[in-house]
Amino acid sequence: MALDFLKVKQADAVVVRAPELRQQVIEILRAVKVQQRDAEVTADILLESDLRGVDSHGSGNVVGYATRIQKGLTKAQGNVRILQESPSSALLTNDWGLGFVGAHTAMTIAMEKASQTGMGAVTVRDGTHIGMLTYYPLMCVKRDMIGLAMTNGAPCARPAGGAKAMMGTNPIAFGAPAGEEPPFLYDAATSVVAMGKIAIARRLGVPLPPGWAADREGDWVKEPPAGRGDNWSLAPLGGDRIRGAHKGYGLSVMVDILCGVLSGGGYSALCREGDNHTFMLAMDIGKFREIDEFKSMMDAMIRALHATPAEPGTDKVLVAGDPEHEIYKERSANGIPLHKSIVASMRSKAAELGVPALI
Amino acid sequence: MALDFLKVKQADAVVVRAPELRQQVIEILRAVKVQQRDAEVTADILLESDLRGVDSHGSGNVVGYATRIQKGLTKAQGNVRILQESPSSALLTNDWGLGFVGAHTAMTIAMEKASQTGMGAVTVRDGTHIGMLTYYPLMCVKRDMIGLAMTNGAPCARPAGGAKAMMGTNPIAFGAPAGEEPPFLYDAATSVVAMGKIAIARRLGVPLPPGWAADREGDWVKEPPAGRGDNWSLAPLGGDRIRGAHKGYGLSVMVDILCGVLSGGGYSALCREGDNHTFMLAMDIGKFREIDEFKSMMDAMIRALHATPAEPGTDKVLVAGDPEHEIYKERSANGIPLHKSIVASMRSKAAELGVPALI
Repeated sequence: MALDFLKVKQADAVVVRAPELRQQVIEILRAVKVQQRDAEVTADILLESDLRGVDSHGSGNVVGYATRIQKGLTKAQGNVRILQESPSSALLTNDWGLGFVGAHTAMTIAMEKASQTGMGAVTVRDGTHIGMLTYYPLMCVKRDMIGLAMTNGAPCARPAGGAKAMMGTNPIAFGAPAGEEPPFLYDAATSVVAMGKIAIARRLGVPLPPGWAADREGDWVKEPPAGRGDNWSLAPLGGDRIRGAHKGYGLSVMVDILCGVLSGGGYSALCREGDNHTFMLAMDIGKFREIDEFKSMMDAMIRALHATPAEPGTDKVLVAGDPEHEIYKERSANGIPLHKSIVASMRSKAAELGVPALI
Repeated sequence: MALDFLKVKQADAVVVRAPELRQQVIEILRAVKVQQRDAEVTADILLESDLRGVDSHGSGNVVGYATRIQKGLTKAQGNVRILQESPSSALLTNDWGLGFVGAHTAMTIAMEKASQTGMGAVTVRDGTHIGMLTYYPLMCVKRDMIGLAMTNGAPCARPAGGAKAMMGTNPIAFGAPAGEEPPFLYDAATSVVAMGKIAIARRLGVPLPPGWAADREGDWVKEPPAGRGDNWSLAPLGGDRIRGAHKGYGLSVMVDILCGVLSGGGYSALCREGDNHTFMLAMDIGKFREIDEFKSMMDAMIRALHATPAEPGTDKVLVAGDPEHEIYKERSANGIPLHKSIVASMRSKAAELGVPALI
């Protein structure tokens, strides 16, 4: 969910339509030798992010992915394959190709296993960025399943009481379908904020609020840093000891265990910038109880939460996925407002690669 | 992990030995018609809590459990049984008996399924209090598995932006074995603190820190309330909007979905005080990768975290389970310091039920 002060200002926005933006992403990826199917999977995930208003994980990032492929940091065609499996579990290698491909394959396998046994869990090593994490539980939601997704990455967040980054933002996403209400779709870093928020603040030229990032002496950082560094780190969710910094820290290590240690790819401190190991879990709701009864109870719960009296200063109590659902409807109808610097960078990359500018 | 100001003062402590305390719990439960095996399971879980220093969930609570049974709020002998199952999943009813029994059965079934298929998940409806949540992933850790446990309960925590309690403290516990290091054992409410912490603060006569609990106007509550009430509620982990209150809130609803909606027992707002529906997940590590390699990497990760430079004001960076592991060693050797009011209440209940006072 975008905080108001991180939203793209109307004067800085270029409105593009989803089909053209998707095709632009595909063309750029094809030009650096990504296979058609893998380019389509990647474009679908990036577009879903743009449509849902998760601007930090949108199509503009294709420029960076393409550049990584050009530099040899990411393989254009990784050999995604199963290294070990059982009826409800699998270990995959993403073989250092585009992370989207391994992650999408992993959740697809998890859902197949869940449809057979009730549960499926797949851990993926040797991965790179997998985009907006919500996408993967959303795959489950569309098949009447519950989905859980996690990913680790290079250090940028410090442990509770620590003065140095040791974990990635290590986010958790979770989705469950409802009946008449939009699905419950949770997606959050286990640090106070995601790195993408720091990058957006830097692009917009706004200072960081206290509580987000600290230097080695523990003082809050105001000027948004340009990237990971030894001299600053994000705080874990909870903030300080008395308000539960150890809770955010512990959740972050849980993510590291399921993504990095269980896969063997490595916990955050072993990840280079751009590495992401991943954990995907699918649960077939119908194996536990009748799906329509589940959905009715989800509707009732969501409505009860919406009806909670609001605190002074809050209009309405929301449920995870609400803001993105609203933005999705709006942007599907009217187009996606991209920051002009993102459009410029995509056009420039397209020109460099000799593919047409479609946006 | 106990905050210093919530620890029992030495002058108020009565030191008891684990075997006598365990037997006292069993005698009290037997006197209210709990079966021997169920009384033993319950006593083991309560004792583990005392030994690990989780005083809010220790043996003293048997007095309340026995009283609930006497009042007919909890059945002495619930008929715990499977309502639906598949190779990796099951739905259980605890039939409103002692929650420990259904939860212990659930994790046992989850581990059996995991040893067959890689994964096992069991959701339990119609439950009551299940004690220290760590116990259940610890069952997994002892079998070289990863364990995850959650439970919901009657409302005491408010949604982000809400002015009324809608969720329980809805905790998450997670455990994974290491090699030479103690296991990683995480256990935390998705609210800023657990209700037990409020009760301890009240017993010790210390004020609540700002950020823990708020009244309907959103002002912080200082005087620890005696129990759940309409006029106050716990804050979700994260605290306020800018520092991620929506993240703690969302995790809490995730717990509600897996425990209350998936089981059909009901989300928090449908729970009466004392109701707890439960979700247990076990993963067989050996199905993903070689167990010794997993444990070696866990050791390396834990040592790297311990070696993190500490913030000014912090002695050493800890890992989830460290403080409890230290207390476990100390109390196993030297006995358990119970607050004198807890000893008095257990002795009084024993006398009322005509069983010998063993502590």
